[in-house]
Amino acid sequence: MPEPHPILIFIPEIKSLISQKGFDELKDFLLEINPIDLADGFPQFPPEHQLLIFKLLDPRRAIAVFEELDLLEQEYLIQHLEDLTLTPLLADIPAEVARQLFQKLPERSIKRMSGLMKKERIKTVQNVLVLPVDSAGTLMKTEFIPLNQEMVARAAIEYIQANMRVRKEEGIHSLYITNNDFKLVGSINLSTLIAAPRDIKIKEIMSPVSFIKILASMDQEEAAKIFSRYKLISAPVVDENNCLVGVITADDIMQVIQEEDTEDIQKLAGMEVLDKPYFDVSFSKMVQKRGTWLCVLFLGEMLTATAMGFFEGEIAKAVVLALFIPLIISSGGNSGSQAATLIVRAMALKEITFGDWWRVLKREFASGLTMGSVLGAIGFFRIYIWSQFSDIYGPHYLLVALTVAASLVLVVLWGTLSGSLLPIALRRAGLDPAVVSAPFVATLVDVTGLIIYFSVGIFFLRGTLL
Amino acid sequence: MPEPHPILIFIPEIKSLISQKGFDELKDFLLEINPIDLADGFPQFPPEHQLLIFKLLDPRRAIAVFEELDLLEQEYLIQHLEDLTLTPLLADIPAEVARQLFQKLPERSIKRMSGLMKKERIKTVQNVLVLPVDSAGTLMKTEFIPLNQEMVARAAIEYIQANMRVRKEEGIHSLYITNNDFKLVGSINLSTLIAAPRDIKIKEIMSPVSFIKILASMDQEEAAKIFSRYKLISAPVVDENNCLVGVITADDIMQVIQEEDTEDIQKLAGMEVLDKPYFDVSFSKMVQKRGTWLCVLFLGEMLTATAMGFFEGEIAKAVVLALFIPLIISSGGNSGSQAATLIVRAMALKEITFGDWWRVLKREFASGLTMGSVLGAIGFFRIYIWSQFSDIYGPHYLLVALTVAASLVLVVLWGTLSGSLLPIALRRAGLDPAVVSAPFVATLVDVTGLIIYFSVGIFFLRGTLL
Repeated sequence: MPEPHPILIFIPEIKSLISQKGFDELKDFLLEINPIDLADGFPQFPPEHQLLIFKLLDPRRAIAVFEELDLLEQEYLIQHLEDLTLTPLLADIPAEVARQLFQKLPERSIKRMSGLMKKERIKTVQNVLVLPVDSAGTLMKTEFIPLNQEMVARAAIEYIQANMRVRKEEGIHSLYITNNDFKLVGSINLSTLIAAPRDIKIKEIMSPVSFIKILASMDQEEAAKIFSRYKLISAPVVDENNCLVGVITADDIMQVIQEEDTEDIQKLAGMEVLDKPYFDVSFSKMVQKRGTWLCVLFLGEMLTATAMGFFEGEIAKAVVLALFIPLIISSGGNSGSQAATLIVRAMALKEITFGDWWRVLKREFASGLTMGSVLGAIGFFRIYIWSQFSDIYGPHYLLVALTVAASLVLVVLWGTLSGSLLPIALRRAGLDPAVVSAPFVATLVDVTGLIIYFSVGIFFLRGTLL
Repeated sequence: MPEPHPILIFIPEIKSLISQKGFDELKDFLLEINPIDLADGFPQFPPEHQLLIFKLLDPRRAIAVFEELDLLEQEYLIQHLEDLTLTPLLADIPAEVARQLFQKLPERSIKRMSGLMKKERIKTVQNVLVLPVDSAGTLMKTEFIPLNQEMVARAAIEYIQANMRVRKEEGIHSLYITNNDFKLVGSINLSTLIAAPRDIKIKEIMSPVSFIKILASMDQEEAAKIFSRYKLISAPVVDENNCLVGVITADDIMQVIQEEDTEDIQKLAGMEVLDKPYFDVSFSKMVQKRGTWLCVLFLGEMLTATAMGFFEGEIAKAVVLALFIPLIISSGGNSGSQAATLIVRAMALKEITFGDWWRVLKREFASGLTMGSVLGAIGFFRIYIWSQFSDIYGPHYLLVALTVAASLVLVVLWGTLSGSLLPIALRRAGLDPAVVSAPFVATLVDVTGLIIYFSVGIFFLRGTLL
């Protein structure tokens, strides 16, 4: 059993209340616990106690807790709750939660659910069911109150009061307005509405919808970009006919942003995206997702052995050259990883687009040259000074130092340029720039770096060491 | 001048309306443009046209545009707008925007601002001014309507109607409730409020505040974690005396999440955090932030030259060993980068805490061994098969293949373990785990990987090649 989250300090208290059968007290105590924390602590209780706790929750909290539970716990509740408790729960859980249950639960649980749910509710859930998994539509809440633009303010407020079901604590944010064909035409805040004259028509006071709306079939990442660019708290979701079908709020978008960033981070580290938290991914899946890329990189890196094979004669004559191989190729790799990561992230945030490639090239050329020169200088003096006290680098140590220094300038420059321009080229080709992971660039630079190093070596050392 | 964002298709239309002096038409046209897009397009217009456009905006949009402008454009407007336009603008911009202006504008602009702002407003701004730069308080809106718990619902609604200034389109989300000492005691949704009986006291219907509140002095990252864990849309901000001082909404938190993720990504790539978008960082600053870490890594990597110095004799005798150096150390580096990035991200998302170190160790030991064995097998057969057609690896190619394979297993295992456990150890020591960047682990594994490789080589090849 996993260790409980440090925030879950309420667990012993609940356990002790259950063992003392202090159910009234427990009911009050549950009111003080945030539903998300409570759901987090649920696995710490045996199933029959889970059922007991659930029955003692007030209905609004019960929904909030249920949403957060794992599938197994949800199934147990669906099988064991009485109709009286389960029916209102199923009526009020978000359509997306219901959709996942319909997709993943075994037949007998689905049967029980269908039996207790209204037909029109099942239809709503089925509409969500046909959306692609990563589409914005799967984030939306379908439980909202649409207003008609012909209503007057007083009628609209009364309509809201009559139809409001506060499912979660945050309540209603923006209200979305349709015409008689259910097409989205505008939005209004509840605060603007209650401040408006009572007999003014909604369409006179609403903000007309410009292009800030989310298509249900749109990618979640695209929806997140719209939220983030326009600093939205909520946005209406429409189908391909511009009919209002749901509302997305910023809390769900925050999760999307974090997941997308996690995916980018994992890709940048040279691995396939894990999709789930570290401990939730099965061992075989994880080894496969990491191992595949490791093998690809390994096959690429084999070219270094081939490249070095061509210079075997030089190494035999000047073993001193071999000593600096790791130093030189890793400097190229590090500068390339930096540049690649920087540019991939800047493109993800839309700070850089393809049109900027020339500006990036100029900037990275200058950066690579500067940083390469600094490393080259350090390398040169390291060999020079060392050679005053030791003859490990032989009589031609100055030429060796020169070879190392010149190679560092070129390799760092090359690493920086390929690391920065490859992601831009990939994006241009319609591919995901995050595939240019740090290890990918490092591998590329390793192979070419070796060729640069030995070519520079032959240039400086021919006639002396070589 | 930077290229305009593809979304800014309205720029030519505005330019043409200005040149035709079609100001009434322009005024209407501006109503259709999202303020954030308009602010993005502002640098495309000469200052006098910026002023003209700004004067034609309706007041609510003008505030939204002003917030998004760069400091230089903001200063130009503050210097050139008439008192009549500037006074309401300064009264309604968020305190945090005003704070930045007070901090960064030259004396004469600050003088003009102070002259036009009410004393109590200046005091609010000054209160924000003393908060640390990265504190949650700098995200908050101080323009909110606090309710007293003793009010009845009808009075509360009337109070809101009288005091509402809809600054941005999204309006009011949650209402926060204080007692007579201005201490935060609860919250309520506007929708719950309007659905409540008219003469019920607020304290009877509010949700009592448990621990979901943000301290103004709290780190922004901490606030973002609370928002993300509890899926919040807005949250109240209190000072150290639990007095309500502001409200934070999820749109601002989204920006914080993205910035924090960008910082983590940059650290993971082995560089100092840039703080600004790619093109906004000065060249010298960028080279410094990247170069510093490159130099540190370079100095670390110099140990590879030292380590190889000890094995110079072995390399001279068995040059074939040198051919596989890049292959072996890079495999260790790649597996280490993967593991480090995975664990650092999982810790940032709180999927893994220090208490999990033993589970991580077991899992990563098994992963490292599996992946190392796969790479080792590939390496072995590569050398074996190649040697059937070429004698590049000499007569003892089987022993060479064995050396490479065994080294790969050990080096990948070592890379995986150090990559995964170092971040956990750093977190335990109170340091930032993201400092264990991919290049940092790669450097560490390069040095130790060489020692492993040559030791394995001496073990297998003593008496034959060595």
